[in-house]
Amino acid sequence: MSLLQGAARSLPRSLRAAGRQQYRILRFQPISRSLSSTPPSPNSSNPALSFPCLDAQDAKSARLSARSLQSGPEPSYTTGHHERFHSDKPLLLDWGGVLPQFDVAYETWGELNADRSNAILLQTGLSASSHAHSTKANPKPGWWEKFIGPGKPLDTDKYFVICTNVIGGCYGSTGPSSIDLDGKHFATRFPILTIEDMVRAQFRLLDHLKISKLSAAVGSSMGGMQSLAAGVLFPERVGKIVSISGCARSHPYSIAMRHTQRQVLMMDPNWARGYYYDSIPPHSGMKLAREIATVTYRSGPEWEKRFGRKRADPSKQPALCPDFLIETYLDHAGEKFCLEYDPNSLLYISKAMDLFDLGLSHQLAMKEQRAKYQAKIASGSGGQEANNTSCSLTLPDQPYQEQPSAETPATPHSETDTEKIELESPPKDLVAGLAPLKDHEVLVIGVASDILFPAWQQREIAQTLVQAGNKKVEHIELGEDLSLFGHDTFLLDLKNIGGAVQKFLN
Amino acid sequence: MSLLQGAARSLPRSLRAAGRQQYRILRFQPISRSLSSTPPSPNSSNPALSFPCLDAQDAKSARLSARSLQSGPEPSYTTGHHERFHSDKPLLLDWGGVLPQFDVAYETWGELNADRSNAILLQTGLSASSHAHSTKANPKPGWWEKFIGPGKPLDTDKYFVICTNVIGGCYGSTGPSSIDLDGKHFATRFPILTIEDMVRAQFRLLDHLKISKLSAAVGSSMGGMQSLAAGVLFPERVGKIVSISGCARSHPYSIAMRHTQRQVLMMDPNWARGYYYDSIPPHSGMKLAREIATVTYRSGPEWEKRFGRKRADPSKQPALCPDFLIETYLDHAGEKFCLEYDPNSLLYISKAMDLFDLGLSHQLAMKEQRAKYQAKIASGSGGQEANNTSCSLTLPDQPYQEQPSAETPATPHSETDTEKIELESPPKDLVAGLAPLKDHEVLVIGVASDILFPAWQQREIAQTLVQAGNKKVEHIELGEDLSLFGHDTFLLDLKNIGGAVQKFLN
Repeated sequence: MSLLQGAARSLPRSLRAAGRQQYRILRFQPISRSLSSTPPSPNSSNPALSFPCLDAQDAKSARLSARSLQSGPEPSYTTGHHERFHSDKPLLLDWGGVLPQFDVAYETWGELNADRSNAILLQTGLSASSHAHSTKANPKPGWWEKFIGPGKPLDTDKYFVICTNVIGGCYGSTGPSSIDLDGKHFATRFPILTIEDMVRAQFRLLDHLKISKLSAAVGSSMGGMQSLAAGVLFPERVGKIVSISGCARSHPYSIAMRHTQRQVLMMDPNWARGYYYDSIPPHSGMKLAREIATVTYRSGPEWEKRFGRKRADPSKQPALCPDFLIETYLDHAGEKFCLEYDPNSLLYISKAMDLFDLGLSHQLAMKEQRAKYQAKIASGSGGQEANNTSCSLTLPDQPYQEQPSAETPATPHSETDTEKIELESPPKDLVAGLAPLKDHEVLVIGVASDILFPAWQQREIAQTLVQAGNKKVEHIELGEDLSLFGHDTFLLDLKNIGGAVQKFLN
Repeated sequence: MSLLQGAARSLPRSLRAAGRQQYRILRFQPISRSLSSTPPSPNSSNPALSFPCLDAQDAKSARLSARSLQSGPEPSYTTGHHERFHSDKPLLLDWGGVLPQFDVAYETWGELNADRSNAILLQTGLSASSHAHSTKANPKPGWWEKFIGPGKPLDTDKYFVICTNVIGGCYGSTGPSSIDLDGKHFATRFPILTIEDMVRAQFRLLDHLKISKLSAAVGSSMGGMQSLAAGVLFPERVGKIVSISGCARSHPYSIAMRHTQRQVLMMDPNWARGYYYDSIPPHSGMKLAREIATVTYRSGPEWEKRFGRKRADPSKQPALCPDFLIETYLDHAGEKFCLEYDPNSLLYISKAMDLFDLGLSHQLAMKEQRAKYQAKIASGSGGQEANNTSCSLTLPDQPYQEQPSAETPATPHSETDTEKIELESPPKDLVAGLAPLKDHEVLVIGVASDILFPAWQQREIAQTLVQAGNKKVEHIELGEDLSLFGHDTFLLDLKNIGGAVQKFLN
């Protein structure tokens, strides 16, 4: 056993002397300290590698812990001043959970006209706040700053634009970091959420604002799921629909990418099964989750142009810590985000995206389920009763039967298995599910370089709507000649995305 | 603070009473136990979610720890009996590290002919062993079982097929889990490695076998990098070259995907900066790394067909733990791998792939560097001296200046920035770098559904060779009509991959 491991082994002894708060801080540190202070064994063939990226994580944990001793450790998840709609009427969620009361944070731009008919609901991606544009109360630029304003794609000379933080989020709307009836954070006692639940909460806000019908529902990414869901749930209350880089049902590749993000987050010991609000947040897990997400937000060709094979410092030896420029970019993106957003919100909202499916059979199953829960609640039982019996999914006893892999060579599947998917014929179930939108004007935009919501998913929306009998569908796909920015294009491309939205709305 | 958090907070107290070995086991357990035994607070609106996937990780740590008390914790990284070439002559590595002595594990099939001219070197992907095919001593099917044998693509009636475990690996060749001069595991005192280093070690084996020239170098994935590198390093000693789903230089998207795998592994506290050999291996980090890798091995369209949106058990509530069938598939793939391969080998070999670049300027820089180290070693200093001064890469003081993102909206890049990459004109530097291969017969195969080594990278190899003046390049690209199996196609498609290799070699 090496000296270094000897140091690691002595951890428990030092812990015995350490106080309660120090426990979490010290998890990595004794190892790293002894590593950096111990010279490599004189009989080692080569020097030990160093790990500045882990030193930085340790230092961050120590800083966060020091802060928690004073003012509580919670980062303040906020993007600044916003309006707040509070509802005392409970919200029944699709999977049987109940929010006995809830808040929706929102911001608005432009003026609501006399007959309250000029409202546009702007629906957001996973981590966005209601702050789509600067306001008097909060002059910080919003996430769609250049797309909103007088004469802009969302024209505030004509429209009253409303943007909310989704429920489940952490920027003012009720989510896992909110306080439950018992005075404690929901944490992972927060119920499973769906995209439709988010939309229902938004329409409760519209009721409050006495807006009976939207001029348009506009959304990108997860917002592009929401705008379709708004039309399907409330066809009479939605005028035009814009769905950018969204989908009508989640694709297994997208589920897989989100799965890995959730797993790395949940594996961070600081996540503590969601109960971290009085302790150090799982900043390392969040950082990793964001790095994986960042891989899916842009595109390989764009990175090839921007980073190529450049190393951060070519004069240095290669390292297992970030080394190539693309790595320092991912590292920085993760670092920047890891305390800006509530980890539990990420888990619940990312899961809601996985569950999204506008196919008719899924819609009917949800409707039936809601009716059952509604009856239970009417009979006096709350959320606890409504979904208590089946809340603990366990894996099947027989694990998934793996297909041929590197370890178990086998013949490829039969010819029929490898047929190309015929997207030109969208599934009948999805056509039936989108039937409520057959008379709406719908704009669907996709981006060829998007790997998270690939362009075939937007083609699927458009083709499905056409099959459902809709004659007012407009479908735009930005080729790689127009954008290599992948999924992020909707945030960046004022000319092509903004231009198309403006033309469609006016 | 909730009851649950109270339980978590009491961890240090229970640790004080626990023995040394128990420390690592208990890291998660007290939290999970209290969570599963404590009913949700009666005043909670909804029941707490349960986390069977984390319970399973805890149980695994406990099992591994119990095992370590008896026989030592190291999983035996082996795929069975193999031949062993031992060299007492040191191996200087590209980045200045030195292996004072080293082993290469290998297996062979077929007979070496009288003039020793019928040898094929089969080069492997990241995690493969030398066991490409069953042998008398080890009848277990190998990873290319159906591709090797009498009348098969690698025809043992004609050829003497040799497959090695790469150095840096853990299946018998010298790697981080091997024992250094001081009697301790190398761990992260193992030096930084390159693809070229692996090839040099293979040619030392060929020297030992008295094979002066290979009939062919054949490789897939990382093996497809090695086969090109073999030709570039030893143009006179290689006949034909087959490079399947490989590349001539790593692409930032591939670096990014490998970066996230390394990071999740290194963040596992059990990784302990590589010094885990006498303790519990970082099985959770390895599992996550393999899950991310698995996402890149197949393709979205194949998953759409195979898994679609099926849930593992639709009668259950959705869960944050694996839930959709695609998730249980990834979970199982990670679980199956996490103790089969040495985590440090994954780090070093994955890094070697990142560093791969056959461009001339990189080759010249490496040559100059090697000459410098060689001189130092000749003057009496070993690996310690050779690279001691510059082994600790730290990030630049100024982090990478981030491009416009969700948080900071901005205009897209200028028109010239978004031009499509012109792959039809491979970079001159790469053309010059591949010039040593201009007279070799080369077969390059790519798969359109591969997202890890995208088909444009194999087109790049072929176009580069043609530009370098090679008139004997054959390039095959399997379209999505032929394979949706992505990067894994080379393991599965006996007809198209095997058929093309067979035709080319005969």
